[in-house]
Amino acid sequence: MSRFLDSRYHSLVPYTPGEQPKILNLIKLNTNESPFPPSEKAVRAAEEEIKRMNLYPDPECRALREKYAEVLGEGITAEEIFVGNGSDEVLYLAFNAYKEKGFAFPDITYGFYPVYAEISGGEFSEIPIKSDYSIDLNKLAATKGTVVIANPNAPTGMTVTKEEIIALLNSDRNRIVIVDEAYVDFGGESCVGLIKEYDNLLVTQTFSKSRSLAGARLGFGIANKNIIADLNLLKYSVNPYNINRATLALGLGVLSDEEYTKKNCRAIMENREHTKRELEKLGFFVLPSKSNFLFASHPKCGGERVYSHLRQKGILVRYFDKDRLRGFVRITIGTKVQMNKLINELTMLTEEL
Amino acid sequence: MSRFLDSRYHSLVPYTPGEQPKILNLIKLNTNESPFPPSEKAVRAAEEEIKRMNLYPDPECRALREKYAEVLGEGITAEEIFVGNGSDEVLYLAFNAYKEKGFAFPDITYGFYPVYAEISGGEFSEIPIKSDYSIDLNKLAATKGTVVIANPNAPTGMTVTKEEIIALLNSDRNRIVIVDEAYVDFGGESCVGLIKEYDNLLVTQTFSKSRSLAGARLGFGIANKNIIADLNLLKYSVNPYNINRATLALGLGVLSDEEYTKKNCRAIMENREHTKRELEKLGFFVLPSKSNFLFASHPKCGGERVYSHLRQKGILVRYFDKDRLRGFVRITIGTKVQMNKLINELTMLTEEL
Repeated sequence: MSRFLDSRYHSLVPYTPGEQPKILNLIKLNTNESPFPPSEKAVRAAEEEIKRMNLYPDPECRALREKYAEVLGEGITAEEIFVGNGSDEVLYLAFNAYKEKGFAFPDITYGFYPVYAEISGGEFSEIPIKSDYSIDLNKLAATKGTVVIANPNAPTGMTVTKEEIIALLNSDRNRIVIVDEAYVDFGGESCVGLIKEYDNLLVTQTFSKSRSLAGARLGFGIANKNIIADLNLLKYSVNPYNINRATLALGLGVLSDEEYTKKNCRAIMENREHTKRELEKLGFFVLPSKSNFLFASHPKCGGERVYSHLRQKGILVRYFDKDRLRGFVRITIGTKVQMNKLINELTMLTEEL
Repeated sequence: MSRFLDSRYHSLVPYTPGEQPKILNLIKLNTNESPFPPSEKAVRAAEEEIKRMNLYPDPECRALREKYAEVLGEGITAEEIFVGNGSDEVLYLAFNAYKEKGFAFPDITYGFYPVYAEISGGEFSEIPIKSDYSIDLNKLAATKGTVVIANPNAPTGMTVTKEEIIALLNSDRNRIVIVDEAYVDFGGESCVGLIKEYDNLLVTQTFSKSRSLAGARLGFGIANKNIIADLNLLKYSVNPYNINRATLALGLGVLSDEEYTKKNCRAIMENREHTKRELEKLGFFVLPSKSNFLFASHPKCGGERVYSHLRQKGILVRYFDKDRLRGFVRITIGTKVQMNKLINELTMLTEEL
């Protein structure tokens, strides 16, 4: 820290991203990336666009918003879509826009929410999840501030239903509910259609997971056009050209290849269910996941040991050094071959226990 | 605006980016882009990287920082470099980090500074530039807060010397001076070497202008490692993966092709001086520019008329509807062919006056 830094930030604890290993040939199951390469249509579109990099990108991202509105359906229009540099940026701007009454979110969820709340200057309360690891919606509804939910939640992978979100929206129509749908394409139920009826709903989505574009940084906010206007006001006061030309082209390209996305999502879901069954055979407790990862613990062995064992064998998963999570590892779902290698290594570990 | 937006932002006036026209075949001299395509080495590097877009980029941008340190020379190390999503993001984070004592900057300068000051919540004073359009360094030095200078300044294109920056740094070693060197490669004098001696200096640079990468969004902060730590603290609390894979590859690629960059800068400087002479022949008053644009006014004709005339002829320049600037247009320097077309059109206009 320098001697000049604003005192407000002296105790700020930043987010810790998952490790991006320098070692090659590791099986990387630690940051919920897709094991599948980006769509060839997306790659070809970006290759063309790279040659025009001397020109600024379209700050309005109009073509991309129009195409995504069409793909989302449910009557959603381009005016109800905001484009961000990953859904992280959408969330950062939303936390700044809607901090006045403070925030409430589950205590076990995406680790960035408390960081965003802290940097926004808003108060926040972390509502303990229940003993079955599900989100305590009643306690969240009873708070006064902006509510933030990841659905499916991370790192549990568990979902809440659309009906439960509707109840939350109705619990107080004068506060915003942010539903982070980063992992919705792996069996969850999207709430985007509800923005037509609820002007207090902001849904965020990302192309990092189901659309194999984690390296491109492309996320979305979907909401009533007044909320989109708020996000644009902040974007045009922070970084208007937040999405670069290659990313715009990749986004448009991947949306013209929905069959590829759907095929990849089906493969991830199949591999997930297969892996879950195999882990259960080895004695693991595995939460019911509708995401592209599994959250699993073993009665005879802490999460850190599982993590270290796999790391030694060239497989990277994620371990969280946090109360109630220390028993678990979070395993991103990869290809069938990668999952079989994981299961083999875990079979050997559990035989030693 | 929604009924939920934080009251702090109700009077926020965002930045207005230059027009990104939908019409094809316009000669675009309005947003200070390079008329030259990106380096072929950069393009090839990005083409390879696009295929790996399913994986997150390196949030530390290590390879790029190491390479840029080498190119900058003057003993600068990777630890003294911060990478941003355009220098806009670097400036946004810096305004947030160093707002406590408020800000001072010239009243005629990059239009984003007052927006950044406003959104950071810091006080700010805009110090009038002098009658010759130069920055009033004595008045800036006499203020108490963080000083922000664009060098060369926009939209004038005029520079201050390294000695003048040193005097400003010495005027108060307990406040930060931010020197925005977006346009430094077209004849200006960089202050990056001064970071070794002055822990209160932050230099920002961009690859949008001299390196033909406006569409990629790549900017830098160069400073003492404690200032870099401040910027990283904020980056990891806002958007750790702020630079995508294609942009990282383009940045590395263009730095391996410095001859191309230097050749393009020489061409821009030659075209600039040629255009300046021709405009002066037509009766224009043209400020002495060390940037990739000219700021010019005609005694018989306001800036808006020049802008409209050129727009009708398919040439886009920028006009600022602001006191003391209404007489001028800002003309980005393009290719020789583009500049000759501009001069022809302006010859016809001035013949009518």
